[in-house]
Amino acid sequence: SIEEIDDKIDLAVIAIDAKKCIEAMEKCGEKGIRHAVVISGGFSEVGNEELEKELLGIARKYGIRIIGPNCVGVFNAKNGFNTFFQRNMDFPHYGSVAILTQSGTFGIALMEKLANEGIGISKFVSYGNKADVDEIDLMEYLERDEETKIVAMYIEEMGREFFERKFKKRIIILKAGRSKLGQKAASLHTGAMATNYEIFKGVCKQKKVIYADDFEEFFSIIKIASLQGFPKGKRLGIITNGAGPAVLACDFIEEARNVELADMVDLTGSAKASDYIEAMKKMKADIILLVFVFQDAPLAESLEELYQGLKEIDKFCIAVAIGGSFVEEQKKRLLKLKIPVFEEPKVVINSLDKLLIK
Amino acid sequence: SIEEIDDKIDLAVIAIDAKKCIEAMEKCGEKGIRHAVVISGGFSEVGNEELEKELLGIARKYGIRIIGPNCVGVFNAKNGFNTFFQRNMDFPHYGSVAILTQSGTFGIALMEKLANEGIGISKFVSYGNKADVDEIDLMEYLERDEETKIVAMYIEEMGREFFERKFKKRIIILKAGRSKLGQKAASLHTGAMATNYEIFKGVCKQKKVIYADDFEEFFSIIKIASLQGFPKGKRLGIITNGAGPAVLACDFIEEARNVELADMVDLTGSAKASDYIEAMKKMKADIILLVFVFQDAPLAESLEELYQGLKEIDKFCIAVAIGGSFVEEQKKRLLKLKIPVFEEPKVVINSLDKLLIK
Repeated sequence: SIEEIDDKIDLAVIAIDAKKCIEAMEKCGEKGIRHAVVISGGFSEVGNEELEKELLGIARKYGIRIIGPNCVGVFNAKNGFNTFFQRNMDFPHYGSVAILTQSGTFGIALMEKLANEGIGISKFVSYGNKADVDEIDLMEYLERDEETKIVAMYIEEMGREFFERKFKKRIIILKAGRSKLGQKAASLHTGAMATNYEIFKGVCKQKKVIYADDFEEFFSIIKIASLQGFPKGKRLGIITNGAGPAVLACDFIEEARNVELADMVDLTGSAKASDYIEAMKKMKADIILLVFVFQDAPLAESLEELYQGLKEIDKFCIAVAIGGSFVEEQKKRLLKLKIPVFEEPKVVINSLDKLLIK
Repeated sequence: SIEEIDDKIDLAVIAIDAKKCIEAMEKCGEKGIRHAVVISGGFSEVGNEELEKELLGIARKYGIRIIGPNCVGVFNAKNGFNTFFQRNMDFPHYGSVAILTQSGTFGIALMEKLANEGIGISKFVSYGNKADVDEIDLMEYLERDEETKIVAMYIEEMGREFFERKFKKRIIILKAGRSKLGQKAASLHTGAMATNYEIFKGVCKQKKVIYADDFEEFFSIIKIASLQGFPKGKRLGIITNGAGPAVLACDFIEEARNVELADMVDLTGSAKASDYIEAMKKMKADIILLVFVFQDAPLAESLEELYQGLKEIDKFCIAVAIGGSFVEEQKKRLLKLKIPVFEEPKVVINSLDKLLIK
């Protein structure tokens, strides 16, 4: 127990039965601990508002700042510090995106997907019921954090005050619980901002906050922003060795608000790597969408040349490639060059559309 | 060359320069060959209509039926026959879905993705410029084919006559080139059906043809139909051990037209396999959506029990699970039980919505 430790303790991670948390917090306070992550569930999210108030009361008495309760805690990718209790998990490497999430479940899934696709993060905070530390506190912290360039957030509800501040960093939000059914599922207890998704989107546009419509789009926006940054203009050029996916991309460009087709080059199935490289050098678009049918022979035979060429060209690039194990290998190689690869033209175009909101 | 072969030849696969195809087709005719797949490009798709007419003329003269030109040809998953010239490709195993595709590129990508996710196919035909054999001929063939239960099609344009027939099997269509930009990219030359996507969707609804809005949805609809069949009713029940993805699913259910939330059980992070199995047995919904946070300890520890239980329960089931390598393993195990797994609640709900069109 805490009393047995002689050293000074910076942080307590509490993951015991909700009712026992009260006593534990009291002991933390007596010991001089000033920061706690409460993983335990069983508080306001299941109707035990009183227990949560009691916990907060003790924390306030001792000046302890709490993250949680009902969360998976925090992770720092630079120093490896983490409070996760999941046994089978991949963690992302160090990078420039900070993750804030109200849902622990969602946070775990997102972390693993980021790890899988080689996207680095700075800090991760699952803040659960936010009895004490909330998204405003966390944003204030992250805006001062030099390791963080982009803040990606999953929220179920948040107060208006969050948007009353001036943001110093780019923010990407996925908001769940925007329908009545979803709100019921999230057991929300809040007002206007939570109940009206149209208002939420309007405020996002005003404040240049990027909002995603679903998990896939959220992840894709993070992927593009993290690997290639933010596009400088809306003119998109397509270079392809097969018509199908490029035609689909064009359909979605026409539906998009902020993306515009600048140029399209169909090199056909006989395209070699050198044809791609030459086309890229000539292209004057702000964003280049490379569609690869890697299975086609001339391209497959000249892959070394392709990657060497891509390495030397400094343009805002995104790729589309669909397939099996051979294509998966190529996707990993593109990722090493920081070129995000997607399977679905729709999500690429829609994500760019969101990234270009001005 | 053809003359040197003494045996009778059933099929010629032609993949030489477009101009040389004329002579080759003539020789096929003389030799008595009555079926040809013309892989070669360089015909009407690049403006050489005359050359394509000439090719067809020779075929007609000898009574040869042509697939193509400008295609990747055909594949039969039962006997392994295939005309693909791609070197690095995975092929799906034998199953109940037939694939028809106008775009070869798209066909290659789709085949590999089907192979990757363990979805079996009966026949695959890439028919390219359809100088002779078109989607109507192919549908007539597939409707008589006992190995085929579902027909999945990628089309860029098609005539009205296709829809004037009565369909004997379920059809799933992804139509590209539905915007002006997309049509330009597909170099379409046809009339009303190609230019008006709203009319296309209307006809699909009338004829109970399922249409997908994008590649991901197309693939997901095939995946569900192939592994679980068609849902018998619209009442959906959710069983989850984490709120996030379930809340997102509810948002999309509210937006869907044909799916209805029947029940939702949040077992929380402390759920064991037995809790899932018990909840499944009690649930009266037509479709059960299982949301798994596999990383959470009690579930991770009782996986054997989970799979045993799932094996014994005969209900229309779909799963959502997001994560890294451990989750990927679990997804493969679910797939063996023919339970389709997805990352994104949105695509699950939207695909079900389309499958429920009546």
